[in-house]
Amino acid sequence: PEREASMASMAAVLNKTPFLSQPLTKSPASDLPIAAVSFPSKPRRRNGAVRAGLIAPDGGKLVELIVEEPRRREKKHEAATELPRVELTAIDMQWMHVLSEGWASPLGGFMRESEFLQTLHFNSLRLDDGSVVNMSVPIVLAIDDEQKASIGESKRVALVDSDGNPVAILTDIEIYKHPKEERIARTWGTTAPGLPYVEEAITNAGNWLIGGDLEVLEPVKYNDGLDRFRLSPAELRKELEKRGADAVFAFQLRNPVHNGHALLMTDTRRRLLEMGYKNPILLLHPLGGYTKADDVPLSWRMKQHEKVLEDGVLDPETTVVSIFPSPMHYAGPTEVQWHAKARINAGANFYIVGRDPAGMGHPVEKRDLYDADHGKKVLSMAPGLERLNILPFKVAAYDKTQGKMAFFDQSRPQDFLFISGTKMRTLAKNKENPPDGFMCPGGWQVLVDYYDSLTPAGNGRLPEVVSA
Amino acid sequence: PEREASMASMAAVLNKTPFLSQPLTKSPASDLPIAAVSFPSKPRRRNGAVRAGLIAPDGGKLVELIVEEPRRREKKHEAATELPRVELTAIDMQWMHVLSEGWASPLGGFMRESEFLQTLHFNSLRLDDGSVVNMSVPIVLAIDDEQKASIGESKRVALVDSDGNPVAILTDIEIYKHPKEERIARTWGTTAPGLPYVEEAITNAGNWLIGGDLEVLEPVKYNDGLDRFRLSPAELRKELEKRGADAVFAFQLRNPVHNGHALLMTDTRRRLLEMGYKNPILLLHPLGGYTKADDVPLSWRMKQHEKVLEDGVLDPETTVVSIFPSPMHYAGPTEVQWHAKARINAGANFYIVGRDPAGMGHPVEKRDLYDADHGKKVLSMAPGLERLNILPFKVAAYDKTQGKMAFFDQSRPQDFLFISGTKMRTLAKNKENPPDGFMCPGGWQVLVDYYDSLTPAGNGRLPEVVSA
Repeated sequence: PEREASMASMAAVLNKTPFLSQPLTKSPASDLPIAAVSFPSKPRRRNGAVRAGLIAPDGGKLVELIVEEPRRREKKHEAATELPRVELTAIDMQWMHVLSEGWASPLGGFMRESEFLQTLHFNSLRLDDGSVVNMSVPIVLAIDDEQKASIGESKRVALVDSDGNPVAILTDIEIYKHPKEERIARTWGTTAPGLPYVEEAITNAGNWLIGGDLEVLEPVKYNDGLDRFRLSPAELRKELEKRGADAVFAFQLRNPVHNGHALLMTDTRRRLLEMGYKNPILLLHPLGGYTKADDVPLSWRMKQHEKVLEDGVLDPETTVVSIFPSPMHYAGPTEVQWHAKARINAGANFYIVGRDPAGMGHPVEKRDLYDADHGKKVLSMAPGLERLNILPFKVAAYDKTQGKMAFFDQSRPQDFLFISGTKMRTLAKNKENPPDGFMCPGGWQVLVDYYDSLTPAGNGRLPEVVSA
Repeated sequence: PEREASMASMAAVLNKTPFLSQPLTKSPASDLPIAAVSFPSKPRRRNGAVRAGLIAPDGGKLVELIVEEPRRREKKHEAATELPRVELTAIDMQWMHVLSEGWASPLGGFMRESEFLQTLHFNSLRLDDGSVVNMSVPIVLAIDDEQKASIGESKRVALVDSDGNPVAILTDIEIYKHPKEERIARTWGTTAPGLPYVEEAITNAGNWLIGGDLEVLEPVKYNDGLDRFRLSPAELRKELEKRGADAVFAFQLRNPVHNGHALLMTDTRRRLLEMGYKNPILLLHPLGGYTKADDVPLSWRMKQHEKVLEDGVLDPETTVVSIFPSPMHYAGPTEVQWHAKARINAGANFYIVGRDPAGMGHPVEKRDLYDADHGKKVLSMAPGLERLNILPFKVAAYDKTQGKMAFFDQSRPQDFLFISGTKMRTLAKNKENPPDGFMCPGGWQVLVDYYDSLTPAGNGRLPEVVSA
């Protein structure tokens, strides 16, 4: 009930299409090509926009894969009674959700082999008209030998949830080998044991992949009190149009929002206004799918975002908060392209990228898995993302002289304190406070409460967190 | 002397711009997109060809990096006296050779980081005009901490051979981290120990890469009796124009030519003639750079090719034989793109691709490293290769009913004998004969002589072969 109340109050605020906005500065002594960091000198007219004013979806048209009402009954009947079945995992369901709403437009279903190979080798797909769209992570469905045998010669299968309820039909299917090692190596740039998504979704998955055209029987709901925040790309476009956005800047996050993020978003908006945009809108877009065990779960992150919002750091008038339903790969420069591409489909024409996006520590060696600058560099050069304005930003850190988060000033490094995600989590676990001005007190308390809610296991260590 | 004589007689034949031509059929029940296997219905007019009639080089212009005579003396002096030095390995020298003649056009030197990252992630480079060229393998130069320190702030370095003689200048240099694990994973799709190129050229290489614009002081020569066969792309284009080629089909190989290859090349020519081309020329293009220890060295392969030629299997009038100076990666679908792209620069507009191109056994597991069909599929979809006609072919095998090599007929598998490279090598090592019609007797004898020339080591096993 307490949680429900919290969500309700959050909703009251968020329904005004919540949140904040903050500073990003041009990457300073960055060695990026100029094109990657420059703002266009005046608002661009986008070409071929499907809806006036917003950037066009990839492929020109948002591909939604949810069966329309008049045919739903018939399709459900077919799925329930006539087709071989493939049971989906929780992560499969999340990808189905992603596909169903067109985040991966123009992809029309789980990848067939030609799409899978193009993704692995080129991080992009060539369309029939010769144009190229970005597609950097494989969106595939694995099946095992037994499932393959049960499908036999059928060209259609029913996809069912863990309770055996049909949720979709996959048609004109193609079954092909699942080259796990190669998939992992080309997606992550390593095959070291301990990659979270790999262990969760690939290592024990079947040796075959099944692709095809997807027909989802009903809009995907989670019934976790957060569905109202799960706006589809079409719904986001509608909202952004209603607001009359003439620039939309997206901020992907999977962590609690601190004042460094806020600084960044505010600064971006200021700069867009300076450039001549009249109504830049922030899409604050926390990732809602699978995350690794030591990340803060979605429900707690949303509570934390609410507190940050209540605290006035975010301006509801110029911010839309919504949940991005994708699972997390932690695949650094490869995955950040997916994060950016999906936001084009939701109407964003500016994308904010930080240090080491979608990165993590190397699972075996004592170093970061990816070079911290590769993400923004790769993003700025990625095929199919030419239409998107990439906004890299300077590192924000706690400026001890000002007692607040500020952009790091290389001329006086001794004045700055870097508080990593790990450090932040450790402080909250130990109920210690971060320095004043790092995060609003209400937001911090949510993190403390979260770690408090984890009953210590017998060995004194925190139990494994089950992610959202 | 014997070898010299052999080379001389080979040269006599090859100087008539030797060799053969043979059959390829459209991949039969192939699941390739139609575009990949279809021949154009009539000879195409190529767009923007720099030299009339031949396909234009990537980027529109062949980028040759050899210092012209009037400035050579001055550059040599600078390299010898004024610059920090970087010593090249034999493989580095091969890449320098490749770059110097424009095989990698429009690449102007060893890759800087932005080119390296685009190669790793996208297998292609975006040019300033927005167009895309294929570039699938990193052409990079590694240096160690000590070399990096010795370069200091210099923006130019001299590249020197193993005797310390300057061979090139690298200018406007950029030094960046060498992410070995990521490079290997993204290039090979595995990080398993035992990849030949990795062990030879990456594992023990330095932790830094140095990129820049290359100025090569003199044309690269090997003085091994085979330089006359090392035609540069410009020289090949000249030869192909002299012959009035209206279609050029390239055949990459790193193995002895057997009658299955011959069948393939003859059939390709027949089909090109049927399509309306008047003068299709075969570019038979053995790879001359680094190969793994158990491949047959270049000099013996060239002897073998000579015998095959003498035997009349190849038609000198419609064939150009030349050596492709690149080292071999054994990186399957990634590398075959490089093999194809380089031949565009040499004037080829058709590229023949077989089963498992540039493939090998998995170094650890008991299976092929790559799916045998991925090479041709990836090639048919590769960015920057749209102008090239990809010609996949059916597997040739020994047809016992006909006593010769023929295209495999799925309706009577029992009639066919597959003779793998490994099997072929084992037969030759043991001085056994393959079935009649597999390879001309003279060509086979060269292989037997080659294995005979390897003095067995004390343990009765053949010693490691030092590759060309």
